[in-house]
Amino acid sequence: MNTSIETMLSRRSVRSFELNKTIPEEVLNTILKVGQQSPNSANGQQYSVIVVDNQNIKDQLVEITAPSSGNKMTYISKAPIFLLFVIDYNKIEKAIAMEGQEMIASENLESLLVGSVDVGISISAMSAAAESLGLGTVVVGAIRKDTTKIIDLFKLPKYTFPIAGMAIGYPSEKASTQITPRLSMETFAHRNVYKLDNFEKHLADYNQTMKEFYATRGIQDLTWSKFICKYYTKELYTDIAEVYQKQGLGLK
Amino acid sequence: MNTSIETMLSRRSVRSFELNKTIPEEVLNTILKVGQQSPNSANGQQYSVIVVDNQNIKDQLVEITAPSSGNKMTYISKAPIFLLFVIDYNKIEKAIAMEGQEMIASENLESLLVGSVDVGISISAMSAAAESLGLGTVVVGAIRKDTTKIIDLFKLPKYTFPIAGMAIGYPSEKASTQITPRLSMETFAHRNVYKLDNFEKHLADYNQTMKEFYATRGIQDLTWSKFICKYYTKELYTDIAEVYQKQGLGLK
Repeated sequence: MNTSIETMLSRRSVRSFELNKTIPEEVLNTILKVGQQSPNSANGQQYSVIVVDNQNIKDQLVEITAPSSGNKMTYISKAPIFLLFVIDYNKIEKAIAMEGQEMIASENLESLLVGSVDVGISISAMSAAAESLGLGTVVVGAIRKDTTKIIDLFKLPKYTFPIAGMAIGYPSEKASTQITPRLSMETFAHRNVYKLDNFEKHLADYNQTMKEFYATRGIQDLTWSKFICKYYTKELYTDIAEVYQKQGLGLK
Repeated sequence: MNTSIETMLSRRSVRSFELNKTIPEEVLNTILKVGQQSPNSANGQQYSVIVVDNQNIKDQLVEITAPSSGNKMTYISKAPIFLLFVIDYNKIEKAIAMEGQEMIASENLESLLVGSVDVGISISAMSAAAESLGLGTVVVGAIRKDTTKIIDLFKLPKYTFPIAGMAIGYPSEKASTQITPRLSMETFAHRNVYKLDNFEKHLADYNQTMKEFYATRGIQDLTWSKFICKYYTKELYTDIAEVYQKQGLGLK
């Protein structure tokens, strides 16, 4: 155990920020440096980040990410900074063109995996850096709800695609300090072979744990299984494949 | 600046491990806890990790990930632990079935993005935890070179798919301590809108920087542009889409 690990183990998403408390430019720059230095596939650096501090743009993001039912993510407009992460094969294409050659790999699904994993690695590193400096963060996948609007809003060129966002700011007193429990370690970590023994038992235990957890937030009779059903028993963001290909990238 | 940030900024991939120095079980468990606690989409926990310490399996991984030309990743077999990260909608499917409902969202490309980004987030957190404990890590995307063999080797069930790997161990004296330079910050971080000004200039500067960097490793006349051409001017891992769908997952 050490401070880094304690910080990561007590990590929770922050969705309530101190208003009027901006992030000093040198703090932001340090976080960006960590994001840029994080490991990436073949040093391709196939992603970029848009730092959003314009209030009007943050307000628009609240509308673009609004769920069809339920609460809008108003914390996006209240956070001093929102970071939009894009897969970026535009830079790669330009570098290859300079050598008089043609980019081919971006036609393959593999290039989407490379970009998505690397964006995840960078987000996580930047979040850890931000948290070590007293900031709070929340990752926002809902920027994929309407990627066409996001592409228009940020003028994302060919060979780029928005993958995830992160709101960042100083946690307000209203920010939750509860750490979300997880399924048992046996269901997460396997040894040498995938083996999911007694999942029903682990699931029943976890459903009970989460029922109590939701109750502390004023939600009664909800289990993890029921919660998960809300997300995964319907289609989600059905135009991603189409928009991705419109950006000149492929899923072969 | 603080210790966490200094560790992340001085981070480098470790590909040479102290032989015969195993990772204590409590250290491994701490790293796994960090990986499990890292943020994930809607608390779906849609991934799992296989902890590989079996020498025969690590040796097989060296063969499966071997590039068609160039050096094998023998460090996989020399690392005390190799972690294989899989997207895991198997657990989600079981939880939904328990509620008498059917998983639908796994048919959409969105579910692959959720899983890939979350795997990246988890890898990064586990890597940072490992590094804070004196270990070194290297992320291995080449496990996607032959996902059919990986699926067979680890008996990965329907609704799961291997996304990335990470070798982990104590750095040997031979491990590089050089930090790989990156493209200029202006090409990585944009403000409120995507704007890639003067990329040719930034690229020329970076090519010069990397030429000198490669030279310190005994490689002459290589620039970043030329290096990138090796990867992205050909198709890579062309069967991913097919194998992914064979696992019962969709790209709609």
